[in-house]
Amino acid sequence: MNHDDWVRREFQKLSKSLGFQYTPLDEINSRLSRIRARMERQGMEVLLVVQKMNLYYLSGTTQDGLLFIPLKREPILMIKRELERARVESPLKQIVALKSNKEIPLLIQTHIGKIPKTLGLELDVLPVRDYFKFQELFLGTKLMDVSPILRETRKIKSPFEIDLMKKAGEIGKKVYRQAKKILKKGMTEIEFGGLLEAVAKKYGHEGLLRVRSLNYEAYTWHVLSGVTGGIVSQSDSPMGGLGLSPAFPVGASLKIMKAHEPILVDFGTCYHGYQADETRMFSIGKLKQKFIDAYNACKEIHDAVLKETRPGADCKAIFFKTLQLAEKLGYKDSYLGPPGLQTHFIAHGIGLELNELPFIARGQSYPLEQGMTFAVEPKIVFPGEGSVGLENTVLVTKNGYEILTPVEQKIFQV
Amino acid sequence: MNHDDWVRREFQKLSKSLGFQYTPLDEINSRLSRIRARMERQGMEVLLVVQKMNLYYLSGTTQDGLLFIPLKREPILMIKRELERARVESPLKQIVALKSNKEIPLLIQTHIGKIPKTLGLELDVLPVRDYFKFQELFLGTKLMDVSPILRETRKIKSPFEIDLMKKAGEIGKKVYRQAKKILKKGMTEIEFGGLLEAVAKKYGHEGLLRVRSLNYEAYTWHVLSGVTGGIVSQSDSPMGGLGLSPAFPVGASLKIMKAHEPILVDFGTCYHGYQADETRMFSIGKLKQKFIDAYNACKEIHDAVLKETRPGADCKAIFFKTLQLAEKLGYKDSYLGPPGLQTHFIAHGIGLELNELPFIARGQSYPLEQGMTFAVEPKIVFPGEGSVGLENTVLVTKNGYEILTPVEQKIFQV
Repeated sequence: MNHDDWVRREFQKLSKSLGFQYTPLDEINSRLSRIRARMERQGMEVLLVVQKMNLYYLSGTTQDGLLFIPLKREPILMIKRELERARVESPLKQIVALKSNKEIPLLIQTHIGKIPKTLGLELDVLPVRDYFKFQELFLGTKLMDVSPILRETRKIKSPFEIDLMKKAGEIGKKVYRQAKKILKKGMTEIEFGGLLEAVAKKYGHEGLLRVRSLNYEAYTWHVLSGVTGGIVSQSDSPMGGLGLSPAFPVGASLKIMKAHEPILVDFGTCYHGYQADETRMFSIGKLKQKFIDAYNACKEIHDAVLKETRPGADCKAIFFKTLQLAEKLGYKDSYLGPPGLQTHFIAHGIGLELNELPFIARGQSYPLEQGMTFAVEPKIVFPGEGSVGLENTVLVTKNGYEILTPVEQKIFQV
Repeated sequence: MNHDDWVRREFQKLSKSLGFQYTPLDEINSRLSRIRARMERQGMEVLLVVQKMNLYYLSGTTQDGLLFIPLKREPILMIKRELERARVESPLKQIVALKSNKEIPLLIQTHIGKIPKTLGLELDVLPVRDYFKFQELFLGTKLMDVSPILRETRKIKSPFEIDLMKKAGEIGKKVYRQAKKILKKGMTEIEFGGLLEAVAKKYGHEGLLRVRSLNYEAYTWHVLSGVTGGIVSQSDSPMGGLGLSPAFPVGASLKIMKAHEPILVDFGTCYHGYQADETRMFSIGKLKQKFIDAYNACKEIHDAVLKETRPGADCKAIFFKTLQLAEKLGYKDSYLGPPGLQTHFIAHGIGLELNELPFIARGQSYPLEQGMTFAVEPKIVFPGEGSVGLENTVLVTKNGYEILTPVEQKIFQV
């Protein structure tokens, strides 16, 4: 059978029967209009989107290609490999085949009637070598950085996006429910983490928690027990764990989980690209009182952040309030990491990527807005002993907040 | 307890007891000397390594930082976060804390006694925004692309690296052995894939198969059954599968696996950063003869590639030989994908990343060399019906080859 014919006839039916949800045209148009308003203010005539998550956000597909967005006319989605599939997945009108990037300038010129004076590219992630090639293709055009515009637009989630994040949260709920049954004395951290991932995937979790970064990687299974919970590593988090080797020095390790030690499960889930991030504590047998006390402090800090969460609240101010509270509770030197290695955020924005806006953090003085989503994660770290924490993914609503990760907030003792 | 004291006292013992192998100094020095010989030929005075896998290759650690390599003097590893852990993991002599990239020029000037005239950076992956910052820090220094040098050096594997790849292959053997027991009628592709991953992780598989690319992602579970095996997607491979959503349109899906259809399991494993990639076919009950015949053709093509594999053999010539053989066997229009969507390679280099040199491919006219490793993967695709294939990771030896993925080469019927 001809592949393209098959895709045109059968792909939509098959994919929808297996749970695929496609981004509606209205949704894409609303995003495009917000992007364009910002482009216009900054004197950016046209925009070329290259990076996968921005492409998905603005076209509905992640097929290999580029999205050209002019200020006034229709966008053009240029697909390098699977054109017919992109045409099913994206509601955009103009979707064309692209053999080589060399064709782009002529395509653009034909579409908008001129060579643009200014062109936006995602300079936060675009590799230099690709940038040089665009410079050659667009001699005389000023290449600008569009990434701040894209980040600003993506920070406010629509009801369509929030629905997908809630579905990710529902997968998480199933994972944590199973976790209580899976966890056994004598199991290694990575064995436990791997089984949690298997449960999550069964329910549609996409495995990778994407991060917008050259060196931070997308993975799920931050399962730390006792001593490994006290280890800091490559990642910018209060603790990183031991990991599996010097090549993968974060997350779960081959350490066997023992009775009475704190087992921290920071396990995010991803549905249709949208993430929900959460942390719960487990123990085999009763946890030592020191860790229960520290967990209760995390819970108090977590609740204090939520109490402040509403449109208009200043991110930096909330962060400093948590520092004060942690100090008052007696955790000045263990809150958010060991002294000298403490992180400077209590919450990170989340959506298609783990490091979106807003950050409730030192130096981030801007207000929360309705439709923002963030993961708030107070953690307390005792080197050589372990760590505890609590994390939920939260939506800023008109008057307050809504939690998108509906797992009971307690220490799960098995 | 103080975190740094704990790391200095306990980290090496704990990590070694849990299987960590550290890269020996001799190994690093041998890599450095090959890099420096190439730098000298190209007039590159100094080199700054940023990307995680190059950092691991040249320092032994992946802690957050940069590695400075001058032509003559000792390299300096500059660590942004976990300095003490980097000091355990890396055998390099000079490992220092770095608060900000702004400190780098002075550090370099102090070390080599001048501002370098030329500086190598990894322009194949370095984001443009970071490049601009380096330009500001090194006014008057010519920034050059060091990535071809690093790729050329990394393409020849040492016995130390080959040993780690073999260990990844051993994990794969355990996975495929379990796969026969796990596979059941009525299971979805992703459920099967998730359980395979859980097995692999239990034995130390690191989960991500890293790819050197902005948009290609590192994941493991390419489990395709029947109709989904005939679907092309974003990835540059003969087929990509349906995946879980438009945001993750590759690999296993929520499709239920049925009797008598081809189930393709392309499952790579990773140990201490080093990968082994392999594909085997499964079926529930007897496979239709059409797919058995196509599998036998893949096996014949696979064996033909191995027969040619020895130092000096031309990659492009081997690729064209497989095209001729596929045509002779009657698979001209299904070999390596459907017409119009066929890929142009039969093998990709593999090591720390999935897309290393060499490529046995159209347009890649260079000889195989002793110490190269590649994954050879003939695949045959029938749109609407399914696909079959065979893949092994192979080392080029002095006189021929050695297979690093020791799973029986057959169709596994359950």
